[in-house]
Amino acid sequence: MKGELRNQLQNKIDNLNKPKGSLGRLESLALQIGLIQQTLSPHLQHPCHILFGSDHGIEREGVSFSPREVTWQQMINYGKGGGGVNMFCRQHGFKLLVVDAGVDYDFDPVQHSHIIPRKIAYGTRNFLHEAAMTKDEWKRALDIGAEMVDKCHAEGCNIISLGEMGIANTSPSSILMHLLLHIPLEKCVGAGSGLPSEGVRHKYEVLKQSVDNFRAIGEDDGLVEKTAAYFMGYEMACATGAMLRAAEHRMIILVDGFIMTACMLVAMKMRPEVKDFAVFGHCGDEGGHKLMLDAMGAEPLLHLGLRLGEGTGAICAFPIVQSAVNMINEMDNFAHAEITKYF
Amino acid sequence: MKGELRNQLQNKIDNLNKPKGSLGRLESLALQIGLIQQTLSPHLQHPCHILFGSDHGIEREGVSFSPREVTWQQMINYGKGGGGVNMFCRQHGFKLLVVDAGVDYDFDPVQHSHIIPRKIAYGTRNFLHEAAMTKDEWKRALDIGAEMVDKCHAEGCNIISLGEMGIANTSPSSILMHLLLHIPLEKCVGAGSGLPSEGVRHKYEVLKQSVDNFRAIGEDDGLVEKTAAYFMGYEMACATGAMLRAAEHRMIILVDGFIMTACMLVAMKMRPEVKDFAVFGHCGDEGGHKLMLDAMGAEPLLHLGLRLGEGTGAICAFPIVQSAVNMINEMDNFAHAEITKYF
Repeated sequence: MKGELRNQLQNKIDNLNKPKGSLGRLESLALQIGLIQQTLSPHLQHPCHILFGSDHGIEREGVSFSPREVTWQQMINYGKGGGGVNMFCRQHGFKLLVVDAGVDYDFDPVQHSHIIPRKIAYGTRNFLHEAAMTKDEWKRALDIGAEMVDKCHAEGCNIISLGEMGIANTSPSSILMHLLLHIPLEKCVGAGSGLPSEGVRHKYEVLKQSVDNFRAIGEDDGLVEKTAAYFMGYEMACATGAMLRAAEHRMIILVDGFIMTACMLVAMKMRPEVKDFAVFGHCGDEGGHKLMLDAMGAEPLLHLGLRLGEGTGAICAFPIVQSAVNMINEMDNFAHAEITKYF
Repeated sequence: MKGELRNQLQNKIDNLNKPKGSLGRLESLALQIGLIQQTLSPHLQHPCHILFGSDHGIEREGVSFSPREVTWQQMINYGKGGGGVNMFCRQHGFKLLVVDAGVDYDFDPVQHSHIIPRKIAYGTRNFLHEAAMTKDEWKRALDIGAEMVDKCHAEGCNIISLGEMGIANTSPSSILMHLLLHIPLEKCVGAGSGLPSEGVRHKYEVLKQSVDNFRAIGEDDGLVEKTAAYFMGYEMACATGAMLRAAEHRMIILVDGFIMTACMLVAMKMRPEVKDFAVFGHCGDEGGHKLMLDAMGAEPLLHLGLRLGEGTGAICAFPIVQSAVNMINEMDNFAHAEITKYF
């Protein structure tokens, strides 16, 4: 049955009014979306972007160019509509949900009513010395992610995009890439939001020591969830939970840059079928991102050198996804258009 | 003055609420558009897509996979709204102008009223043996392109995209790339709409012989316009004229794939300042396209493996241009957003 739908979709795409394969990536995207929605006539409905924010214990080790307070400042700023994520959500008609999963700041619930309060703690612990979060916190974070996706799904959303705000969160992402994909750590560590080269060196040393300590206390990096909970931020764990739930609902998951790709990596390691729902929006400049995408067999839609985070690379890819859907629905076929079929 | 505006624009972009440079290609794009429109607050207005169609004498040599009649069939099809170009124009709010510059077919002016009749001839001559068009025809084609751009400009358009329909038009594009950029011909010849490898070999032989004949009759390929008129199709000459006029109006020019890039190459060789107005939408799969873009110093926005032509790659890039404009206009700056400026 599933193979039959695939054949029908491919057949429909091949008979559209164009040389076979000439709409390139849009064709493979249309096939994927048809399979996700189990239909020959897919559609996109009520796109939502969920941005999870949290702070990281590892930030205390000076691994980030940006200071910790930028996390809460930006979370507040999203309420004013002037962040990168706000613009792109407006441009492409996304509903934006901003979730405090563990920001090191007390938001005023009245003044900052745009922030959905789900604070697990005031930032994770420092994974240089101990697990970033407990097993219970990990489960709670997954549940928060799932809760937000359920909320969107209940409103009719069938395409979701995920983003993050969490100063220092390229650090856990690099480690997860290293441990789960067996790529040498030095190839996984980059400049984040703008570290100079000596800063990148320091970051590498801190991350190397963190991995050594993790192993020394007898942790087994073959256990995906344990590894994820040891290093991830709450915002990343929430995003992972959101991806898992979105796949259960058969929603399209727009994956952003380095950090969200690391979350998708964890989600895929937990449940391989999640990858079928992932549309990788953007390959950024962060050192290892292309390497990570390649190792995951991912083909991102855009390459625009974005490294802002917040999910901006995923949202900017939305019109390409819409183009693929329009193609399969609106493009004439050869028979109807009375064109000589020349292949 | 011009340098001053550049500094002001760069300063504005650097102070937006994001790590410096973190919106990558959108930042350089916003700078370019600000310079084109000579303002710190650019805007996009009434986008138009002009599609020129024409037939090619060289098609008689079997250099194309698709048969000649596909040109007129597709021109008619654009009136039904089911072509690739129609979908993407609808998606992004482009007005579409379809112009018959030299299609080998008599369109019924009533039944096919969507086609603007500017037929110069029923296709060009075969450049294997003689110049594709006369000097007068070349001038007429440039004028037709300019006329169409004037029409759009008068309606308030400040961003224009150009496309083509002309079976066999990768052949003249390959030759122009070879002659104007001094890239070996074998690197300029590709599969077009789907030639098998023996077909590509035959196409190469025909084009090689065409260039040899061109040189044998004492033509001087240093003369850009003479070279262009010898090889181009009418649709390509029209597009070149459109680019030249659009630059005079200080309009943004969205450049599509291999064929439109070759037209931009000719326009730039005629007037180098035209390049300042060019936004390269897409790098396609056609053999030499990346090579040509690199040699022109062009940085295309998308890489989606499209090779449909019609201008689809340019139109699909429109939302990225819109994102760049939204960024510079709508994104908050650090002072206003009360974010620690961390660079």
